[in-house]
Amino acid sequence: MILAADNMQITNRVVADALKEMRPEAIQNLAKACEAAGADMLDINSGPLSRDPESKMRFLIESVQDVSDLPLLIDTANPKAMAAGLRANRKQVIINGFSLEPAKLEAILPLAKEFDADIIAYLLHPDSRVPADSTERLNIAVEICHEIRKSGINENRLIIDPVIVPMMWENGAVQASEVLSVIRMLPDLLGFPVRTVAGLSNLTSGKGNREKKRIAEQTYLPMLAGAGLTMALLNIFHHETARTARVCSLLTPSLSQPARIFTWEEI
Amino acid sequence: MILAADNMQITNRVVADALKEMRPEAIQNLAKACEAAGADMLDINSGPLSRDPESKMRFLIESVQDVSDLPLLIDTANPKAMAAGLRANRKQVIINGFSLEPAKLEAILPLAKEFDADIIAYLLHPDSRVPADSTERLNIAVEICHEIRKSGINENRLIIDPVIVPMMWENGAVQASEVLSVIRMLPDLLGFPVRTVAGLSNLTSGKGNREKKRIAEQTYLPMLAGAGLTMALLNIFHHETARTARVCSLLTPSLSQPARIFTWEEI
Repeated sequence: MILAADNMQITNRVVADALKEMRPEAIQNLAKACEAAGADMLDINSGPLSRDPESKMRFLIESVQDVSDLPLLIDTANPKAMAAGLRANRKQVIINGFSLEPAKLEAILPLAKEFDADIIAYLLHPDSRVPADSTERLNIAVEICHEIRKSGINENRLIIDPVIVPMMWENGAVQASEVLSVIRMLPDLLGFPVRTVAGLSNLTSGKGNREKKRIAEQTYLPMLAGAGLTMALLNIFHHETARTARVCSLLTPSLSQPARIFTWEEI
Repeated sequence: MILAADNMQITNRVVADALKEMRPEAIQNLAKACEAAGADMLDINSGPLSRDPESKMRFLIESVQDVSDLPLLIDTANPKAMAAGLRANRKQVIINGFSLEPAKLEAILPLAKEFDADIIAYLLHPDSRVPADSTERLNIAVEICHEIRKSGINENRLIIDPVIVPMMWENGAVQASEVLSVIRMLPDLLGFPVRTVAGLSNLTSGKGNREKKRIAEQTYLPMLAGAGLTMALLNIFHHETARTARVCSLLTPSLSQPARIFTWEEI
């Protein structure tokens, strides 16, 4: 699995303050710390950016790229901010992301063609409801592919996020199993080796004992790797979880498609 | 997953001494400790039992069943000891096990019919070589089914062990991936919901850092659970590994088919 750090988000006080004052140091230190902790990519989650979306996103991307060569995921629902981020970007980049929600189909999806970028699609209903089961998710995936082709985007640009839900939801355990089977079935269903990404922290969002949340993450991650997940979005400072991901790569490189090959000495 | 403790084996000094002196206490204490640690079943591995195989196996089974109601796996290559154990058994029991090795086909397999017992089949070549890949394993599984039917044993009595090999083997990582795909493919290939079992400690046998071995176990076990493994044979005193197994059952009960349902409070 490729490990994308989800640490650079606006809900992180350090990022919020740095963005408000347009001071790059704190953001740059965070980016370097994520890279040192083993991140293969960085997700830059700016939030909606209601004021000055373009200059703020440009500031974020430029600040990070001044200190890190890691590929970025630009993570915002604001199309103006997304376009500004893509313009500012000088390296490999992934648009994160769109769904069947009409506003996103209209304003986010075309950016993948315009900027020749990879793009993440969330398996959500057009009204942003989470699908109930794997059948609903697979139907949505087929719709997504249809939209991708309609927009003239090469299907190899697509990365699918099956949407992990909190395990504390009433049907959390059913959903956790369904997400695994969706990851496994997507390449056959769509007829090409589609890449997949999942936000691991979604599993443990909400209240609950912190140590139990960590062990849930560390248990679910190998299940995702075994199902063939391409890319995990996770808190890279959860060192035991990141270590588990490296062990997945070491034990089953053909399934967990690591960004780089580890030796036991590095675990 | 059903958790079968592999702790009651002749290589354990406590078991060896107790068996030599035919003193049940140490064995009984060990059985109770395994049950307290969360074992759903106990594997009684007596070794070859070259002297007094029948009375020694009877002693082992009776000693354990005097203090525990857990189902047993009788784990010996000695057909006389196996038969004596099956005669002494008063509860649910699994014969562990046979393979395409001629001596086992001849002397162990028929005991499943005679005692109306479940039986584990190892996916090994007739000369006990480990298969190179999943294709070889699946071919052997088909052969095994043929032998089962030829012996007049109901196929539902069969539990298949795909044979985990040490990760330190040159092709260990390939084998670890192949075992997962075999577990996933067996029910479709054989046309019935065949149960599977795997010896987790095989993964980490040989030299190596103990802590790294544990994290390898804790990472591979959820992969096995996600692939649909029915039963894991493991050192039940590796508490973090047993805990990981319970989290598998909690997160994906439909895949990991727990012997009982856990709550987060019990994790």
